[in-house]
This record gives sequence, C-alpha cells and structure tokens, in this order.
Amino acid sequence: MRTQVAIIGAGPAGLLLSQLLDAAGVESVIVETRSREYVEARIRAGILEQSTVDLLRSCGLGERLDTEGDVHRGIHLQWPRERHHLDFSELIGRTVTVYGQTEVTKDLGRARAAAGQEIVYEVSGTAVHDPETERPSVTYTGPDGRPGRIEADVVVGCDGSFGPARAAVPDPQTWERVYPYSWLGILADVAPSTDELIYAWHPDGFALHSMRSATVSRLYLQVPNGTDVATWSDDRIWTALATRLGHGQDGWTLNPGPITEKSVLPMRSFVQQPMRHGRLFLAGDAAHIVPPTGAKGLNLAVADVALLAPALASLLRDKDPAPAEAYSDTALRRVWRCTHFSWWMTTMLHTSEDPFDAQLQLSQLRWLATSEAGATGLAENYAGLPIGF
Amino acid sequence: MRTQVAIIGAGPAGLLLSQLLDAAGVESVIVETRSREYVEARIRAGILEQSTVDLLRSCGLGERLDTEGDVHRGIHLQWPRERHHLDFSELIGRTVTVYGQTEVTKDLGRARAAAGQEIVYEVSGTAVHDPETERPSVTYTGPDGRPGRIEADVVVGCDGSFGPARAAVPDPQTWERVYPYSWLGILADVAPSTDELIYAWHPDGFALHSMRSATVSRLYLQVPNGTDVATWSDDRIWTALATRLGHGQDGWTLNPGPITEKSVLPMRSFVQQPMRHGRLFLAGDAAHIVPPTGAKGLNLAVADVALLAPALASLLRDKDPAPAEAYSDTALRRVWRCTHFSWWMTTMLHTSEDPFDAQLQLSQLRWLATSEAGATGLAENYAGLPIGF
Repeated sequence: MRTQVAIIGAGPAGLLLSQLLDAAGVESVIVETRSREYVEARIRAGILEQSTVDLLRSCGLGERLDTEGDVHRGIHLQWPRERHHLDFSELIGRTVTVYGQTEVTKDLGRARAAAGQEIVYEVSGTAVHDPETERPSVTYTGPDGRPGRIEADVVVGCDGSFGPARAAVPDPQTWERVYPYSWLGILADVAPSTDELIYAWHPDGFALHSMRSATVSRLYLQVPNGTDVATWSDDRIWTALATRLGHGQDGWTLNPGPITEKSVLPMRSFVQQPMRHGRLFLAGDAAHIVPPTGAKGLNLAVADVALLAPALASLLRDKDPAPAEAYSDTALRRVWRCTHFSWWMTTMLHTSEDPFDAQLQLSQLRWLATSEAGATGLAENYAGLPIGF
Repeated sequence: MRTQVAIIGAGPAGLLLSQLLDAAGVESVIVETRSREYVEARIRAGILEQSTVDLLRSCGLGERLDTEGDVHRGIHLQWPRERHHLDFSELIGRTVTVYGQTEVTKDLGRARAAAGQEIVYEVSGTAVHDPETERPSVTYTGPDGRPGRIEADVVVGCDGSFGPARAAVPDPQTWERVYPYSWLGILADVAPSTDELIYAWHPDGFALHSMRSATVSRLYLQVPNGTDVATWSDDRIWTALATRLGHGQDGWTLNPGPITEKSVLPMRSFVQQPMRHGRLFLAGDAAHIVPPTGAKGLNLAVADVALLAPALASLLRDKDPAPAEAYSDTALRRVWRCTHFSWWMTTMLHTSEDPFDAQLQLSQLRWLATSEAGATGLAENYAGLPIGF
C-alpha cells in the first residue's frame, strides 16, 4: 500500500491527524492494534480544553459535542471545611467542556469512516522502517494473518507509550517520574452530586468528583501503589469518597449509586525528546505521559496533532520543510508546560508521609483561593493555553 | 525590675516591638545575650518589603532608610541564555527596598536609646517563668555576673531559634525541612554589577547577585551541605559566580572585587505553633525559620511584631484580650504563606540530582517570565502581602 502519511494508532490523536490531513489535501492510512469497538469503548479522559473544543468544531466535529458536551466555567477546590470555586470564565474568559474521550473517538471514527479513511484495525507486529529516508514504511501482520506494508512519505506514531514508534527513535532523551500513589477510579450510574469538578485535598488522601454526563459520575480516590481493586468494596469506596469530599458539610451530600467500572490507575510523568526522527514524528502519549490530575493527556495529544497536521501539509504539499523541522521544539514547549502543570496539581493535592508537605499544600490551596493571580495561574493552565503556544 | 512587657532579644524584632509599644504607651525592658556592637554588626537580610518600609517610616524610622535605602522595582530571573525582569511595580504597584538588616538594627538601636529604653545586653542563662499566670517573669545573669529578674505582665520571645522562649512553650507542634544544599555567601567591596537582584538558575547550582549599597555587593552560590569555606578561594568563587550569573552573556559583565566576608549558610524551614502560651508570645525566628531565597525572614519578624504590638496594647492598656488571643492564629496565616513561598522559591531555583527536576524548574521559570498571572503571583508574595493578611 502506498500513501503520503502512515499513521500508527487509531486513538483520538491518530484519527484527528487523519481528519486534519484530509482537510489539507494530504492522504493517510492508519494501522491500529485493537479493534474499532475496543478503541471507542476505552475509558479515558473527559475534560476538553477550550482550544481542543475550538479545533474539533473547526474540523466539523462540533455537532454532538455542542449538544451533549457540558461547558464548565471552572472547578471547585476543596480541603476540610472549605470549598472554593475558581471561575475560569471570569478569570480568563475561557472554559472547559466535559465530553468523554470515548465520545470524541466515536465522532472521529464516524467522520473518518464517512470520508472513506483507510484504517486497518487488529494488526500485530507493527514496525517502522527507514525513518531517516524520504521513503519510510510501516510493516505489520494484518487481521487475516497476512503481512502488510505501507510505503509513505512520512510515518507518525500516535501509538501511545507502549507502541513501536517511540522505540524507533534512536538515543532519545527521556525523563520519568513515578508517583508514590495511584488512583482508584470508578464509573457510577448516578447523577453527579456537583455541577463542576471537585478537587479535594484531605488528610486521608486526594479525591476527585468528576462526571461523564448528567447520569454518569466519575470519581477517584488516591490509593497506595499496588492497591488490589478487590480490597475496595463499593461500600468502602462510597464511604471514603463521602469523607474526603465532605459529605454533610454545609448541607452538601454525595449521592452514591451503582458502580459499573472500577480500576486502579498508576500515575507517572514521562517525556521523550526529540519528537521527530527524520520522517518519523511522534504525537500524544507516544512522546509524553502526564498524571491525570491536570486533565492534560488528551488535550496535549490534540495540541501536538494541531501543530503537526499543518507542518506535514507544508512539507508534502508545499515542499516547505521548516514547520516539520520545528515541530519537535515547538511541541515540546507546550509538553513541558503541561508536564509541569500536571506535576504541580498532582503534588499539591496528593498527601505524602511528610507532615510539612501537608502544611505547604494547605498554604498553597489557601493562596489559590484568595489570590486572583494564583487562581488565574491555575485557570490559564487548566483551561489551556492557545494552540501553538 | 518591674515592667509591662519583658522582651527577650534585642534584634530587629525585639527593638521594633519596644518602639511600637512605647508609641502605644506600654513600657518594656529588653534583655539580650550579645553586646550591642555584635547585634548591630551581625550580617543578615537586606530586602525590605513595602509594608516593612511603611511600618518603619510610620514609627519615625524612615529618615536614613529613605536616604540610603535603594528602591527596587523588581528582580531579574535568569537561566542559561535568558534573563527576564519581573517588574513588581508594574505588576502590583508595590516595590522592595534594599537596606541591610544591620542598618535597620542601628536605626532602631538609636531610636530606643534616645527614648531611654531599658536594654540589658550581655546577659546569660535567660529563663522564662510562670507564663501561664498574669505575673510571668524573666530571670538572667547580668553582665556583672549578678542575677537579674524582670517581673512583667507579658513576656515576648524575640530571641531566635536557639533562645529560651521557644522552649518554654510546652508540647508545641513543630515542622521542619532541612534542604540538601547550603549557600556560600560573600560580601565584596565592589559596586554591584546589576541594578536589581539577579536570581539565577544554572546546571551548576543556584546563584544570587544581591547588594548592600552602591559600593558593596552581596553574592551567593549554592554549595553542598557541609562545604568547608576554606575550599573556596576568592578566585574559585568569582569564577563560579561568573559562570552561573552569565558573565559575557549579551554583553553583561560581573565585576569582581575584594571579598570582605565569606560564610556558609545552611537552609531550613521551621515552624512552631502556637506562637503564644498564656502570657508568653513568640515573634520572628523564635517561632519560624525560612530559607533566605524569598527574602522573607526579617519581613516576617516585622509582620509578627506589627500584629503583636497593638494586641498587647489592647490587652494591657484597654483590658481587651481578644487580639492577643487571636495573635497566634492570625500571625500563622502569614507565616505559612511565607513558609510556602520561601520553600517554593528555594526548590524552584536550586538544582537537585534528578534531571526531571531541572526540566520542571525551567518550565516553571519560562512560565513566570511569560505569564502575567505567574509573574504577578511571584511579585505579590515577594513584595509582600499587607500587614494583617
């Protein structure tokens, strides 16, 4: 098979890239290890930055997002006996939208299918060849067990942290931080007990009340690494959430409901640079992982792709290689900003063994709740810097 | 001897307290372990917050400060190849003033002497008695070797981290963080090579270019704990400072000169609470220590005293105990804000063993240099929150 851009990975980054390339008149083929059903059902992030929403709208993906997405003006920041609302809309004139990654992936999947996008699902043994040349290729074993090969001008790895693209960059610089705690996340069939997300610091550990829709709540508890999900009964989970989120405080109640999904998520930060090697480019989790506290993972992947698509169009259509050559450096500025922000939110809200940390965290939280500069700094990072920052 | 307020310690906190109490019609006696000459020559901080300057002026201590103090609009924040000026004056309408602690202490010493303040220097064996009663007392051995005793209504410990007052509070809560680096500080007889302070992040370690006057520079280098000052020759110091501060970068030069003082300063954070036990009150270093990176130590002592003096006047003159009873909680709000800020400045600027930390620090610094919210947050903490915050 011959195409202009071979994309590894049909998650939101790969699908959005093919969508943007198509709009710019550049053709692509996607290969994906999983099935379409699996990719579209995979539970992931749910908070879209303003610029992610704007980008999705601009490429014709705004319809369901505008109907079903829930615009949030800000977040609640909480610690024992105090809850404060940070109003991003008032502070910086930007908002975030709650719309699950599964929904974004479905919308993208439909749009790509309607456009006749070539996507080969359920491949195995994907490998990148000759990225240093102008004729790189991707080989794989197809779902029928037969070998496949895509010859391309450019290969893009949107294949996550464990995919083959990242490993095809020789001698990268890498940075990693593994956090000493994990999240126990649940989905519950119950209306959210809050209008906007609650980020709660508590001596027992961090808790987050998030949501997926008007009838589905998403909640998280800080738990020790290596926690066995079997040790957390539904009762134990709701009791811990009630304590940490302040059930009964100022008349606020947490409404429990049937838990439909329960899992333990490890937390780490990871950055690999450069994000380009010859004609191989990395986007999203293939190049960087953030802990979920700042809701940056999906948005950062979208920002990468929003830079990369026009850069590849310049390279392949207009024969101008400059934006593609600048891609790694440009993307990494935002990557490090979001890596820092995600680390900061994480370390500010998760309890440690050291009692001095708790006092620093509480002092920081009080400052955010009382200083306009403090609140604005959080807001501009959380709601997201403009694409191209 | 009988007085209303027995003050332990004739550093800036103790002297300023006696000055403010006198103005409020409350009499005091000060005891001090060191000689007046020693106290006035002791090299310490040199950056006064706006509210410290305002307070010193308001109690008649503005004359020399206004003539010899150097108003700074902000600071320079630097990392390799980049120097950015944060203009506090533009950001928040507040400034800081460079005026050495030694000068503040001299001004206060003269004012107190002129007012006939009783100060007993060179005492030893100072002890606090009966703070739980309305008749606490302080005993000591005078410079002549004879025992002394001050009976008072109130005792205030302005006697620093190693004085007896702190230890007279039973069962306090304490928090401590010892940092894994120290500062090598020098005084040099040379005009500063910069108009305002330069805070420099560098892979070799933090450096700070500060100053005491138009002819005296004060500079610091991050060094490992346990560094022997003898291993740092003048040449080695100036070479390291030139590298870390960016000598030659964009035409900027560091002018070396004769080093007149050289010492290694350990870095720690410490807070003890409550800051009051019955009729014993703590102010300044007696209750809290900050690392010097945020220039908060002296200013925090001044803020404590600015709260405490009117509270004691209410208690002793107006028989209203409420402000004195609230003193510890009120003071601790600012103490924790400054403790957090000092920790934040310190950990943002000092290099560690972990290469991920370096990237987080650089990302944070770039954000401060480009985000108005980020710069404003630093400015409002550095230039100082209003007294009573």
